Order: sequence, then C-alpha cells, then structure tokens
Amino acid sequence: MAHIDLGVDEKRFPGIIGLRMYRPETAKPLYDLADALLRAPNSLSRGERELIAAYVSSGNECDFCRDSHSAFAAAQLDGGLRLVRDACVDPDAADISPKLRALLRIAGAVRVDGRSVTTELVEAARGAGATDVEIHDTVLIAAAFSMFNRYVDGLGTVVPDDPAAYEMSAQVIVAHGYSA
Amino acid sequence: MAHIDLGVDEKRFPGIIGLRMYRPETAKPLYDLADALLRAPNSLSRGERELIAAYVSSGNECDFCRDSHSAFAAAQLDGGLRLVRDACVDPDAADISPKLRALLRIAGAVRVDGRSVTTELVEAARGAGATDVEIHDTVLIAAAFSMFNRYVDGLGTVVPDDPAAYEMSAQVIVAHGYSA
Repeated sequence: MAHIDLGVDEKRFPGIIGLRMYRPETAKPLYDLADALLRAPNSLSRGERELIAAYVSSGNECDFCRDSHSAFAAAQLDGGLRLVRDACVDPDAADISPKLRALLRIAGAVRVDGRSVTTELVEAARGAGATDVEIHDTVLIAAAFSMFNRYVDGLGTVVPDDPAAYEMSAQVIVAHGYSA
Repeated sequence: MAHIDLGVDEKRFPGIIGLRMYRPETAKPLYDLADALLRAPNSLSRGERELIAAYVSSGNECDFCRDSHSAFAAAQLDGGLRLVRDACVDPDAADISPKLRALLRIAGAVRVDGRSVTTELVEAARGAGATDVEIHDTVLIAAAFSMFNRYVDGLGTVVPDDPAAYEMSAQVIVAHGYSA
C-alpha cells in the first residue's frame, strides 16, 4: 500500500500508473518528459535509451522502474531481455556497442552524484563515437530516472508480483508512447 | 566550462539556463514540471515549495540550484534569505511551521533514497497537518530536484560567482513563472 490514499486499486494500477491517476497535473509534464527523452527522434535508438533508464533504475534498486523499463528496452532491442539484464548487471561484459557502454558509465556516475561525471568519462564516450547531444541526453535520462525512482519508491507504491505485467505496458508504449 | 559545447556564453547563461537554450525539446517538459510543482495553485505556498527545492539542492551540494531556489524562496517568504539559509542548514532549529519541518524531513529522506521514506515520517507530517496531496507534492519536488541537481552538475555547467545574479531571475520567476 502506498503511503497516501491514491483512490485506485493499487494492484491494478501499480507504480507510477496510480500516481498518474492521482495527480494528473504533475503527471502531464512527467509523461511529456518521458516521451521527449525515450521516444522522440534521436540518434540513440529507443531501445538504447530505455536500456539507460533500466540501468539507472537497477542501480537504484527501484523494482517497478527496473522491471518496466527492462521490458520496454527488451521489446525494442535485438538481444531482448537477456541482453538488457546482462547490461544492467555488468555493462563491461554485455554484448553492447562500445559507445553504449561508455554512455552507461556516464549514466552510472550521474546516478550517484552529478559531480562524479568526469572529463575522462565524457572523453571516453566521445572517443567511442558519442555526440554532444547523446551525452546530454544520457545525463538527462539518468537524472530523470533518479527522479522517477525516488517518486515511486518515496510514495511506497505497489510493485507487481509478476514481471509479465509489464509486457502489455511495453506493447502499448512501443506502439503509442508515454503520453497517449 | 560545461562538458559539452552548449553554443552559448556560459557566464551569461549559467546552470540550467544554457541547457534550456541548447536543448529546448527536453527543456519544455522540465520547465512545465517546475511550474506544476512550484507555481501552480497549491495549499503549500510558493515560498514553501521553493524552500523544499532549496533544501534538497543544498543537501546535494548543487550550488546553482541551491542558490537560485534559495533566492526564489527568499523572495516569497517573510523571513527572507536568512530564514531560507537557517532551514537549509537545520530545519529543526529554523523558525518554520511544524508542518513544513515534517515535510522537509520527508524531502531529505527522498533525496537519499525513495525507500528511506518511512511510515513514521509520513504519519508525523500528517500529525502536523499535512494533507496527502502536500505529502505527494513534497516527495515529487524532492525527487525532481534530485534530477535537476544531477542534470546541471552532471553536465558540468557554470555557476555564477555572485549570488546577486539570482535576484533578477527571482523577480522574473515570481512575476511570470518558469515556462514564460
């Protein structure tokens, strides 16, 4: 049970879904942000951006965001859920591009503290082919999930028992995006 | 200098201001979120909500967000900058209401990790008169500044030397809001 009365069946509307229904005024910019970061045209694929979100949520041990964005990443990456889980556990060992690996290192630093992003981490990403916009968006995705993780966990929202619950959401989001 | 080339004079456009000009597509929902959280009609005053933002930014040692939102809080609270600084250093000793003190405790927990918000902290806020929406908004303001702090510091943006730089911004924001 969440810390506040969301006025919905929390088993049916877990995590941020119930919060969106409780407070649509604040949900609107949050979902617009998710679309701008994870769905809008970008030289990073939608699967890669969802993987950054899943990686940060995994580091923050936010079960709802980790499992949901892992499902959304898996639905949009050739390697599927196995690749996503490998990358969340150890980007160095996972079968991902050197550029994505370098961007995950930046995301991991942002997750801990913005000030831990070093010139060396940024230069390594650039050396692996990352553009300035890709570096910018990686930092902002990692920062945004430092928010989303704290939002759903800070209000004590319910987490589904069955990870399959995220697969239907994945289909909707892949087809229609977040704000739909 | 920021980690990426923002294409602006960073001394004139420090912190998130340069980032907004660099990437307006992502800035739009971020500024809409700031308006929804800190400006929209609410039973918490605008000054109180800015104080929560300043408190979280102070804990994260994000100089730009701490100094700017301290100025915005001071411009909208009777106690001015002295009260804001007192509250950021020690909410227990500051001359603020028991309700705001209890909400700052929740914000401080969210800043560290969403999971550190306990039933006891929430019950204490409720006992001091906080509504469920106020508790929700406090959690989301604290989560959002966990994002904003990581965003401006993660990209290594410039911080003004002179805190007076924030006073003009404060006038604009008090009069017109964030999205204007």
